[in-house]
Amino acid sequence: MTRLTNRQYFLASRPQAMPTTDNVQRRDVPLGPPGDGEVTLRNLFISLDPAIRGWMGDEPNYIEPITLGDAVRSSVVGRVVASNSAEFEVGDVAMSLGAWEAYTTAPAAGLNKLDESAGIPLSLFLGILGPTGLTAYFGLLEVGRPRAGETVLVSAAAGAVGSVVGQIAKMQGCRVVGMAGSDDKCAWLTAELGFDAAINYKTCGDLEAAIHGACPEGVDVYFDNVGGDILDAALLCLNKFARVAVCGWISTYNVANPPGPTNLWQLVARSVTIQGFTVLDYRDRFGEGVTQLAEWLLAGKIGYREETVDGLDNILPTFLRLFDGSNSGKLVIRIPE
Amino acid sequence: MTRLTNRQYFLASRPQAMPTTDNVQRRDVPLGPPGDGEVTLRNLFISLDPAIRGWMGDEPNYIEPITLGDAVRSSVVGRVVASNSAEFEVGDVAMSLGAWEAYTTAPAAGLNKLDESAGIPLSLFLGILGPTGLTAYFGLLEVGRPRAGETVLVSAAAGAVGSVVGQIAKMQGCRVVGMAGSDDKCAWLTAELGFDAAINYKTCGDLEAAIHGACPEGVDVYFDNVGGDILDAALLCLNKFARVAVCGWISTYNVANPPGPTNLWQLVARSVTIQGFTVLDYRDRFGEGVTQLAEWLLAGKIGYREETVDGLDNILPTFLRLFDGSNSGKLVIRIPE
Repeated sequence: MTRLTNRQYFLASRPQAMPTTDNVQRRDVPLGPPGDGEVTLRNLFISLDPAIRGWMGDEPNYIEPITLGDAVRSSVVGRVVASNSAEFEVGDVAMSLGAWEAYTTAPAAGLNKLDESAGIPLSLFLGILGPTGLTAYFGLLEVGRPRAGETVLVSAAAGAVGSVVGQIAKMQGCRVVGMAGSDDKCAWLTAELGFDAAINYKTCGDLEAAIHGACPEGVDVYFDNVGGDILDAALLCLNKFARVAVCGWISTYNVANPPGPTNLWQLVARSVTIQGFTVLDYRDRFGEGVTQLAEWLLAGKIGYREETVDGLDNILPTFLRLFDGSNSGKLVIRIPE
Repeated sequence: MTRLTNRQYFLASRPQAMPTTDNVQRRDVPLGPPGDGEVTLRNLFISLDPAIRGWMGDEPNYIEPITLGDAVRSSVVGRVVASNSAEFEVGDVAMSLGAWEAYTTAPAAGLNKLDESAGIPLSLFLGILGPTGLTAYFGLLEVGRPRAGETVLVSAAAGAVGSVVGQIAKMQGCRVVGMAGSDDKCAWLTAELGFDAAINYKTCGDLEAAIHGACPEGVDVYFDNVGGDILDAALLCLNKFARVAVCGWISTYNVANPPGPTNLWQLVARSVTIQGFTVLDYRDRFGEGVTQLAEWLLAGKIGYREETVDGLDNILPTFLRLFDGSNSGKLVIRIPE
């Protein structure tokens, strides 16, 4: 162990806009043994999520900003290569809050042991069966609270969260409309995932008119991952007592001082509730969520897309694809064993 | 009856900023007899509320905009001078949705008969025992949902709604902090109404720092009547799972294309809920609300201020005082009998 080095991508400075190689730099550091109660994982998969961009800033957030000089925080799945805990043996596989690094050392208490024998691809525990799937599950059902017959509108609908939101909403008996940034993504939503309609927001022209057209009875639940102009258009299409669930506003993450939405008056005009949340708000119920998502997944009731890119050294440019819309579904870095 | 004329202030054009005498004009029209099932009131009190400004515009709102050419919509209390309904006799007193006019004719079914013999000043049915009191009651208890020991922050706290919100919050066992625009108003809040602290937002300097100072444990419920910079400062002081109740944003009503709040990211950072509402959302429970408010009022548990201005011809300049902060408490036009 003591001869191993750990390659890390660390936060050298806080990005003002898109993170660059000035902000996120590479280093190789010696890998020490795990401390008392700790376990060292050789990372197999590293999750790339829009939320990471938020943690790179120094604004108040739901968890602490990444400390300058620390490896960039991320969820990881890895194989135990050294254990100083009775709970883990070398060879076990676990999910952990880790970083953009080859090896993550963390307290055993914070690790979630995974069962390789179930045959579920391990990367799914970072996506549909992990934070993104749980964000969709709790955000839609607990924050959006859709009722059968209502209309659910989803932004970034071909993304890791949005695609799951829409499919769960269909199972609740809702009309489901997704917004995405390419015809391919829209076709995937309607042809494969069962969305009732999809709007290519880049080519549809007047987005408010397009939403009204796809949601003739108005929008009861808007699951918003995007913010900005798309939120403003959606606000004008809401029904009385509509719920807007917000887990992030990806359109604002790389913009210094983004303007606020201008149509918030609809809050009062339609008695609307806008509720922010993070998946951590539901951590006491993760077991329930994973069990339900796994049941749907194994029964073929939820489709998903995952895009896996090999190689830790590709992590920053791959991460940036989250913000230009060139990915669909869950984006993961793989470091082959 | 047929010889009477009805003086009205009607909407001649929609205001872009502060309503002017070009937008709201006077006319005297013949007063006809009430139609079948209708009642004619000689108005005694006309309510002046910020919401009326919203109805003068043509944006989508919770009720229809005032039609151009119609008298400006408002709540009124009047005495029946002609009745074409078995439910009302001449001499009865009632509250109604009416207008800026000397006489209001309306269907009896929409009128709320008032009991003069109870000795409650009739104007209170437009204020503390009417829409403003009910807005405070339901907005705080149903939207804000304060729990004992929490901190409640109120904007426009010396206004007709805010002053009641704060007093109800005190009765719930909360720490209550009000924001108002003069030292006199602030002194009234703390010395007479029992607020724990008051902030003069015009003189306090850094408003975020002032809120943090007055709310050392953070804000759990923010009752917002104001929007704009005050909302932006309050958003930075919220606790995890805070609730923001919004019944109007008076700072934006006379501004063309007001910018949106810039600190909405706190929605996600603190898992905050922002909920818009109007008192009409609770119309099925008005009886409960009025009963409770009257009980508190008669027991001396709620203080209030009312500013009464005599004369229908003073209605527009008096209305504009809502927007320069020169009124405190409920603002009413009186037309002496």
